[in-house]
Amino acid sequence: MLQSQLFVKTKREAPKEEESINAKLLIRAGFIDRLSSGIYTFLPLGYRVIKKIENIIREEIEEIGGQELSMPAIHPKDFWQKTGRWETMEDLYKLKAGKREFALGPTHEEVIVPLAKKIIKSYNDLPFYLFQIQTKFRKEKRAKSGLLRAREFLMKDLYSFHADEKDLDDYYEIVKDAYFRIFERVGIAEKTFLTFASGGTFSKYSHEFQTITPGGEDTIYICQNCHEAINKEIKGKTSNCPNCGKKKFQQEKAIEVANIFKLKIKFSEPFDLHFTDRNGDKKLVQMGCYGIGLGRLMGTIVEIFHDEKGIIWPKEVAPFQIHLVQIENSKKVQKEGKKLYRDLQKTGIEVLYDDRKGKSAGEKFADCDLIGIPIRLVISEKTLKQNCVELKKRSEKKTKLIKIPNIKRILN
Amino acid sequence: MLQSQLFVKTKREAPKEEESINAKLLIRAGFIDRLSSGIYTFLPLGYRVIKKIENIIREEIEEIGGQELSMPAIHPKDFWQKTGRWETMEDLYKLKAGKREFALGPTHEEVIVPLAKKIIKSYNDLPFYLFQIQTKFRKEKRAKSGLLRAREFLMKDLYSFHADEKDLDDYYEIVKDAYFRIFERVGIAEKTFLTFASGGTFSKYSHEFQTITPGGEDTIYICQNCHEAINKEIKGKTSNCPNCGKKKFQQEKAIEVANIFKLKIKFSEPFDLHFTDRNGDKKLVQMGCYGIGLGRLMGTIVEIFHDEKGIIWPKEVAPFQIHLVQIENSKKVQKEGKKLYRDLQKTGIEVLYDDRKGKSAGEKFADCDLIGIPIRLVISEKTLKQNCVELKKRSEKKTKLIKIPNIKRILN
Repeated sequence: MLQSQLFVKTKREAPKEEESINAKLLIRAGFIDRLSSGIYTFLPLGYRVIKKIENIIREEIEEIGGQELSMPAIHPKDFWQKTGRWETMEDLYKLKAGKREFALGPTHEEVIVPLAKKIIKSYNDLPFYLFQIQTKFRKEKRAKSGLLRAREFLMKDLYSFHADEKDLDDYYEIVKDAYFRIFERVGIAEKTFLTFASGGTFSKYSHEFQTITPGGEDTIYICQNCHEAINKEIKGKTSNCPNCGKKKFQQEKAIEVANIFKLKIKFSEPFDLHFTDRNGDKKLVQMGCYGIGLGRLMGTIVEIFHDEKGIIWPKEVAPFQIHLVQIENSKKVQKEGKKLYRDLQKTGIEVLYDDRKGKSAGEKFADCDLIGIPIRLVISEKTLKQNCVELKKRSEKKTKLIKIPNIKRILN
Repeated sequence: MLQSQLFVKTKREAPKEEESINAKLLIRAGFIDRLSSGIYTFLPLGYRVIKKIENIIREEIEEIGGQELSMPAIHPKDFWQKTGRWETMEDLYKLKAGKREFALGPTHEEVIVPLAKKIIKSYNDLPFYLFQIQTKFRKEKRAKSGLLRAREFLMKDLYSFHADEKDLDDYYEIVKDAYFRIFERVGIAEKTFLTFASGGTFSKYSHEFQTITPGGEDTIYICQNCHEAINKEIKGKTSNCPNCGKKKFQQEKAIEVANIFKLKIKFSEPFDLHFTDRNGDKKLVQMGCYGIGLGRLMGTIVEIFHDEKGIIWPKEVAPFQIHLVQIENSKKVQKEGKKLYRDLQKTGIEVLYDDRKGKSAGEKFADCDLIGIPIRLVISEKTLKQNCVELKKRSEKKTKLIKIPNIKRILN
C-alpha cells in the first residue's frame, strides 16, 4: 500500500477525553477514530489488525471443530425474559419497534439455545460447536479504557453442546489449549495467565484469561508455585490455589482478554433443551461458552507492546510486515524505491511504502515509530550508493545496511 | 465438510409466517433461521454463501481503490440532527443510554463525513474511496420478503470523496462497471438492469441496479432500444428513456440489488466538509455513495435460481462446489467415498460429503436438490463396480458415469 494513498493521518495529540494508553496511541497512529465514548471506528490500518486477529481466532477455533455462523444483534424481548436477564442485566441496550421491545445482544445464549433446540433430537446430534465473530453491545457505565471496555465491540463467541458433563469437561480443556495457541500467535501468551473465577450456580469455577499489564482494570493473584492465577472474587473466598493448593501469590494488574465457562444446564433448563439418550431417556443438554473480545485483544496488545514513541506490533497482527521509507525524492531514489516495493509485494510480503513527498526524514521516522510496523527499511541516496537499504526493527535500536539483492533472504 | 457433522437439518415445511420464495427455501434447506420478522441467523451453510458474496464484493471494490474500514452501528443523535434525518427518517431505530440518545445506523453518511473532515485539508488529500461491509438496521414496517427486506442486514457501502464534479462523474462510471463485474460473478448480470431513479436535491438522477424476477417488490420499465431501465418514479415524470430518448418500454417485476448516488455536496454542506484547492480557495468536497445489500443479493440469487425441488446456486457463491453422496454403507463404499472426499479436498475443491447413515438414497437426493450445490457425485456399490461415480449437475437432469481417476480432470 502506498502511504500517500492510505486514509490515515497521524496526530501529535490524542483527544483529551481518552485516558488509556491503547486509545491514545491507536488514535494518534490512525488505527481507530473515536465517535463517542466507548464507540470507535476501525480505520483502514486498524481494520487490517482486527482482520488478522479475526483470522487467527477463526483458524484455531475451526481447528477444534467450531462451525461458524452469524446471529442477529436484535433479539426479541421474550427470549431474554425466559432467562430473567431482561431485568437483571444492567448493561442491556433496549429498543422499541412499534409495541414490541428488543434487546441489542451483549451475548447470544438467548438466541443460540432456541436455535440448537430446532436441531438437537437425539444423542446422535451431539456434540457440536458453533461460533461467530460478531458485534456485541453493552451499555457500559464507564467506558474510559479505550478498546478494553467499548460499548460496541467485536467478539468471538463459541458455544459447545454435549450429551454429558464428561464430554463438556474434555472439550473445555481443548478450548483452553486453543486459547493459548491464539495468545501465542498474537504475542501475549507469556503475559497471559489462566485465572480461576466464580462459576455461578452450576459450576464451582469458570476461567478467565488475564493478561498482566499496568493498564489493566482487574487485579489477579498468580500462584508462585503452579503459575495459574485467581481473580479478586476467588481470593476473597480462599487462601489456597485451587489448582495446586499452595498459598503464595503475586498480585498483578491485568486485563481479562477471554473467558470460558461451563454453563452446564444453566440455559438448557429455561429453554427446555433436551435430547434423547441411548436408552431413550430425555436429558438436558450440557453446554459450555467461550468468549474472546477482538478489540479488547487489540487494545491489550498495544498496552503491552509500546514505548514512548508508539506501538510495537507483534509480527502476526501487524498491519504490514515492512514499512519501506523513501527519503528524498530524487528520480533515482523514487525509481529504486518503487522497484523494491513491487519486488517485495510480489513475494507476498505486506509492505506499507512511505512514498510521501514534502515530509522530512524525521517526520517519516516518527510516523514509523508511532505506527509500529515490525521492520523499517529506509532507502535514500546514501544507502543506494552502497546498493543497500537500512534495516531497523521497531523493537530494537540498532540499524544495519543490507545489500538490496539480499533483502528477501534476510526477511524470510 | 462431513454432512453428518454439519449443523443443519433440512425441513419439509418452511415457517408459516414466511411468504417469500427465498426465505422459504433458505430456511427449509438450512441456510438461515428466522429469529423474528425480518431478523435472521445465517447458519453455517448460509454463512459460507454470505462470505463468498462478501469476498467477491471486497475484491472488486479494492480493485477500484476502495479502502476498507469499519464504522460503529451506534451513532450519537447530534450527527443525525445535523442532516435533519433524526426526524425525517422513519425507519431509524433509536435507543437511549442514560440521558443520551443514539441511532442504530441504517447508513453511514452521518459518520463518515465527520470522519473525512478530520483528514481532508487540501486537494492533495483527494480523491479517496472508503468502504465497509457491516450490519445496518432499519425498522422496516413490512418485512415479509425474507432476505430482500430485513430489519438487520449486511451491507457494503462505499463512499467516494472528490475535488470536483468531473472527478466524481468519472469514478461513478468506474463503480458502475465494478458493480456489473460483481453481478456477473454472482450469476445475476443477465437479469440485472441499470435503472434510472430520482437523484434528490442535487442530482438529476441516481441509479439502481434492478434484477428482474417475479418475486420482486419493485416495478421497472426496460427501454427496448438501449436496455437501460427506469423505475416507477421516473416513469411518472417522463415518457422517454433518459439514456437514449426512445419511448418503448417493457414492464417487469424486479429487486433493487444495489444503488449508486451522486451525493455531490448534500452531506459536505451540513458537516462543512471543505478542502483548499490549488488556488488556495475553500471548496466543498464532492461525494458519491454506493451500496449493495449482501443478504438481499443472496435472497435475489435464490429468487432467480431455484426450481420446485430447491435452490440451484451459481458456482461462485455456492456453499460447496461438490456434493459427494455415499449410498449404502458397505465397507467398500465407505472406504472409497472417504478416499474420494479426501482426494478432492486436497486439490482445493470444496466438498460437502454426505456420509450420513440411515438415510435412503431418495432422502439424500432430495436434500441435494434442496441445498443446491452445483455438482452432485454419487458413489455406490453399483457405480464402484465400474470404478465410477455418477455425476449430475444441479441445473441439468441427465446423469453420467465418470471413471474415478478422471474426476479431477473433468471438474477442472
